[in-house]
Amino acid sequence: MYFLSDNAGPVHPNVIDAIVQANAGYAPGYGDDPLTETARNLVRDVFEAPDAAVEFVVNGTSANALLLATMTQPWETIFCADVAHIHKDECNAPEFYTQAKLSLVPTVNGKMTPEALRTKILAEQNRGVHGPQRGPLSITQVTEKGTIYSLDEIRALTDVAREFGIKTHLDGARFANGLVALGCSAAEMSWKAGVDTVSFGGTKNGAMGVEACVIFDPDLAWEFELRRKRGGHLLSKHRYLSAQMLGYLADDLWLETARAANARCAQLAAGLYDVPDLTVQFAVQANIIFFAMPRRAHKRALDGGAAYYVVNGDPDDGDPAEMLTGRLVTDWSITAADVQQFIDLLHG
Amino acid sequence: MYFLSDNAGPVHPNVIDAIVQANAGYAPGYGDDPLTETARNLVRDVFEAPDAAVEFVVNGTSANALLLATMTQPWETIFCADVAHIHKDECNAPEFYTQAKLSLVPTVNGKMTPEALRTKILAEQNRGVHGPQRGPLSITQVTEKGTIYSLDEIRALTDVAREFGIKTHLDGARFANGLVALGCSAAEMSWKAGVDTVSFGGTKNGAMGVEACVIFDPDLAWEFELRRKRGGHLLSKHRYLSAQMLGYLADDLWLETARAANARCAQLAAGLYDVPDLTVQFAVQANIIFFAMPRRAHKRALDGGAAYYVVNGDPDDGDPAEMLTGRLVTDWSITAADVQQFIDLLHG
Amino acid sequence: MYFLSDNAGPVHPNVIDAIVQANAGYAPGYGDDPLTETARNLVRDVFEAPDAAVEFVVNGTSANALLLATMTQPWETIFCADVAHIHKDECNAPEFYTQAKLSLVPTVNGKMTPEALRTKILAEQNRGVHGPQRGPLSITQVTEKGTIYSLDEIRALTDVAREFGIKTHLDGARFANGLVALGCSAAEMSWKAGVDTVSFGGTKNGAMGVEACVIFDPDLAWEFELRRKRGGHLLSKHRYLSAQMLGYLADDLWLETARAANARCAQLAAGLYDVPDLTVQFAVQANIIFFAMPRRAHKRALDGGAAYYVVNGDPDDGDPAEMLTGRLVTDWSITAADVQQFIDLLHG
Amino acid sequence: MYFLSDNAGPVHPNVIDAIVQANAGYAPGYGDDPLTETARNLVRDVFEAPDAAVEFVVNGTSANALLLATMTQPWETIFCADVAHIHKDECNAPEFYTQAKLSLVPTVNGKMTPEALRTKILAEQNRGVHGPQRGPLSITQVTEKGTIYSLDEIRALTDVAREFGIKTHLDGARFANGLVALGCSAAEMSWKAGVDTVSFGGTKNGAMGVEACVIFDPDLAWEFELRRKRGGHLLSKHRYLSAQMLGYLADDLWLETARAANARCAQLAAGLYDVPDLTVQFAVQANIIFFAMPRRAHKRALDGGAAYYVVNGDPDDGDPAEMLTGRLVTDWSITAADVQQFIDLLHG
Repeated sequence: MYFLSDNAGPVHPNVIDAIVQANAGYAPGYGDDPLTETARNLVRDVFEAPDAAVEFVVNGTSANALLLATMTQPWETIFCADVAHIHKDECNAPEFYTQAKLSLVPTVNGKMTPEALRTKILAEQNRGVHGPQRGPLSITQVTEKGTIYSLDEIRALTDVAREFGIKTHLDGARFANGLVALGCSAAEMSWKAGVDTVSFGGTKNGAMGVEACVIFDPDLAWEFELRRKRGGHLLSKHRYLSAQMLGYLADDLWLETARAANARCAQLAAGLYDVPDLTVQFAVQANIIFFAMPRRAHKRALDGGAAYYVVNGDPDDGDPAEMLTGRLVTDWSITAADVQQFIDLLHG
Repeated sequence: MYFLSDNAGPVHPNVIDAIVQANAGYAPGYGDDPLTETARNLVRDVFEAPDAAVEFVVNGTSANALLLATMTQPWETIFCADVAHIHKDECNAPEFYTQAKLSLVPTVNGKMTPEALRTKILAEQNRGVHGPQRGPLSITQVTEKGTIYSLDEIRALTDVAREFGIKTHLDGARFANGLVALGCSAAEMSWKAGVDTVSFGGTKNGAMGVEACVIFDPDLAWEFELRRKRGGHLLSKHRYLSAQMLGYLADDLWLETARAANARCAQLAAGLYDVPDLTVQFAVQANIIFFAMPRRAHKRALDGGAAYYVVNGDPDDGDPAEMLTGRLVTDWSITAADVQQFIDLLHG
Repeated sequence: MYFLSDNAGPVHPNVIDAIVQANAGYAPGYGDDPLTETARNLVRDVFEAPDAAVEFVVNGTSANALLLATMTQPWETIFCADVAHIHKDECNAPEFYTQAKLSLVPTVNGKMTPEALRTKILAEQNRGVHGPQRGPLSITQVTEKGTIYSLDEIRALTDVAREFGIKTHLDGARFANGLVALGCSAAEMSWKAGVDTVSFGGTKNGAMGVEACVIFDPDLAWEFELRRKRGGHLLSKHRYLSAQMLGYLADDLWLETARAANARCAQLAAGLYDVPDLTVQFAVQANIIFFAMPRRAHKRALDGGAAYYVVNGDPDDGDPAEMLTGRLVTDWSITAADVQQFIDLLHG
Repeated sequence: MYFLSDNAGPVHPNVIDAIVQANAGYAPGYGDDPLTETARNLVRDVFEAPDAAVEFVVNGTSANALLLATMTQPWETIFCADVAHIHKDECNAPEFYTQAKLSLVPTVNGKMTPEALRTKILAEQNRGVHGPQRGPLSITQVTEKGTIYSLDEIRALTDVAREFGIKTHLDGARFANGLVALGCSAAEMSWKAGVDTVSFGGTKNGAMGVEACVIFDPDLAWEFELRRKRGGHLLSKHRYLSAQMLGYLADDLWLETARAANARCAQLAAGLYDVPDLTVQFAVQANIIFFAMPRRAHKRALDGGAAYYVVNGDPDDGDPAEMLTGRLVTDWSITAADVQQFIDLLHG
């Protein structure tokens, strides 16, 4: 009953195996090894983007910050959702790397609308040197609320961006969960929908710690590499990073793990709808659920062995009837039995 | 015959085993798991520093940059060797994180002398707000030239620093190699010698990618943690970083691997002294050798299957008799037979 | 009929005279001259703050950015009004100097309420290292909308800040206009109301280009001085900056010029209330008026020789009946006849 | 007898007059006024560069930092003299604005040689992402030692730079003093000699506080303007900055003041050669002299009313016979009688 985050479960055995297999003999460091080139090409294949620059880092914060820095000038502002991870959960890393600022676009169910985006872009009107200049757009798929942009919705946002000469970054920490939910290809959910760069997550979906930075314009590759080194994000024993990505992509493991996580989440959602005094707050489309129930019910669930975040209050302290919001995240390793146990626990 | 770097060999099986053992069940992310606390305590034990702050990162550049940033104000200058890794090999990462500059102290055999350090500190004389203010000292043990500071030499440098109210960082990417060469304890080579923070390397000595940042003044811990997150260097699945450190320190593996690397280097050095037209350039004290021999000899060695850096010229192009410098680095995995094969190759 | 900004008019003759008087003989540079010390003491007298650190810079953006940088850590967020100059009009200078980010507090009539501030501070809840940490509060007096915080309102905001251990900066680009409107002392409108640092403006109120940075905690003085030099904001021929401040404060010129500017603005407001199809949008309390009238009326006024900003549209292009907002700012030099001429022009 | 610096004397009356004349009526702020455009064009005329971007700032540190930032990427290193002002006297402002580092080229008599420059550039060899990349060259004319690069010497340095694809910045805080000494034109000492950007100083040569940033490639203009605003260096009442430059350039005042300063310095040098126990240390070519004499002689001169820096020791404390170095700087306002009085004082 561990729903704290999709970074809390074990690494998939295939990824461990790939690391173990990579652990033989000698290889040049810093990504100049053959395994890394193989992994890069595999990502290019996945994205149907043979010319894309592909580089690996250990986590999503560095992927986002480095990609955005490569797309942004220090006097610009980055447009993103008001609930975006880059705004709320990265301790100013995007500002550190880009030296720019963020303009927050209001969201509905975790998603920006084209209208809200346009309004915000227009509000950063052209006042010469006085205000920040318009920088890139950053979209998160799956959103922080567990909802998903349809391909049309992504395209509508990138169309607005393009109208103003603005490029688009996709924070894809849960790229796979979104992709299998939409049943589309990686290309469709990225460059075919107008996206210029992607933080392609592996860590939350079965890897140990690897994200691919995918840049469809290869002219930006060298700047990205310099920024990565300068940020201290180039690994010396790089092959172990690449091995993870190989294990993650081989035999479509990444799709399998994402489907498993989403399926467990759907099972959870189905079970929750019956629970008295419990409201699911957003459409459940991937592997995240937000739900409200009384403090006393949270307390009982947590005391009963469930693990998840209570977002807006202390489950142990306060009015027992007060409605508090909990967040459940499923990863590939959660079992159907686990989910059922949790639902049973809620039913008391 | 792979002497390119000590980051080119495989991860020690014990470290892999530790990762595999850590890969079970659920654990909170971002270092809040019990394995991480165990690993922190193990490092504290190694340094006989029960109150020290200990945090893990994936590589030496981030360890150095984050520790220095925690010790330095943006208007200061950091004193370091003119051959220091933080100056020559980190693509401005220290400047990026500290926002400060570096003052280069001339070296002899890769080592700063107390006199040279004092001269440089005095040269950054107190001219009010005009020049940079004096920031911390950074010492590298083992040095970039493969030489080692004795405990007295470290103490003499930190004494000079202390005289000016300056704190000291130790870049210990090869801490273990230095320690076993000196036959001293980690405490003796750090805080007992006046060092305030240590980048305690694991990656070059058998780990996959982990360094411990050791801060003897725990009051700096929180700032360090915030800087690490802001730099994108806090891993979500943190337990796998900690597991590496556990495997690395358990049963004194780190000392064993360092002794193995140093022993192979000593074997190399012994073999090289006989080779005609070959000069070893610095005292061989740890696991690095710089040596000069004619271009034609380099070419023959490299064509014969050896792998190492030729530092100052193209081995394939130029006067065959010109003396070029090569660098050999041994890691724990190099075998005595490998070394002998290389020496035989040089003898022709 | 020049109402474009209070930086568009001439320098007051007394300030010019002070510069001319300072222009004799030799003086050490960089603020080590006696005139500068006299000017610093005069500011300390004005603020009844004998121990305050007082330093001069040439404009408001640098004053704000340097003061905020001295109060903020790079991993923090600064709380300010959503219409604040530091957010909208300084091209990321605050972010550049502080390396931090801004959290925008919603405003009513240009003013934050204590409730809105508290809500925003609470929203930047303590989530460990993940989100930005809480940094200082920045209040603007006179606000961007021409409204004024009462002393009680300032105190209510700083009280909320203090409750969370947060310090307060006052952007006083129009400090004098606010002060004469409130009829209070500089001390009452700053440290007695809980303010820790002030950007004390001179430029918009008769000086050529000088702002005093007032820091009530003198322990921050040295850091401020280093940041000022590092930002390139320390003038070599510093006495001419100090002379301006002397001329500005001598014989209460600063109060006289502020009263003149506010009086002309009041005269404007009185005249505008009669103009058909014209609505004044905020309380007119200092020297700024926002007003709406049809595009055709703006066009006629501007064609007739008036100069002011039309904030949200092109006066020459669009539906003649559309209501557009104009901004009028009066400085000390505007004459009553000028104002009357403009009102007559509007009346057609 | 005031030789402390050329920023210690009064502003030339013509410059004050120009300010006073500018002080009438209303003008748009931030450089959008006609006076500013006139001043820009005057600088373009002086440099025979009708397309150059020309912008004004208040001091040399900001001019240098902003120009270098416009020419440099954060992962690069700037080549400059080991005695350069940007290295020693700007409290990390160049590092703050560029985010890059400086590579110090050894100097002889304050001047880099092409050989030394080439050696340093080669030392920053191409090692992929590991080291900093090669950034621009910065030359100082007049040098910190009071010596002057001939046009051929400047050309030789920029030729080396160009060979490596490197652009050149000229720190011309004392541009006029160098120019009149060489008897050449501004074009000859800049773009005709391979220079790409110039910090064209006014402050040290009779202005109050103005430097022109001259960028021969106008494509960089917009970035420069954004960086200036973001650095807080765009003045609102900009016309007073422009007026200074107008007064400075009108009727060749700038040449006249530079000739006066240089002439007084030559007079000083001529007088010093006779003084017993006094050695002039560098060729006296502009308006700066370094000289050595015993501590007791310094003490007597300073006690006798002379003002100048003693560079390397306390004139009041130490062995009376120890040779200490003094620095004399003449500005336009120093009189021949002043100089004679000082020489008489030295002769005792």
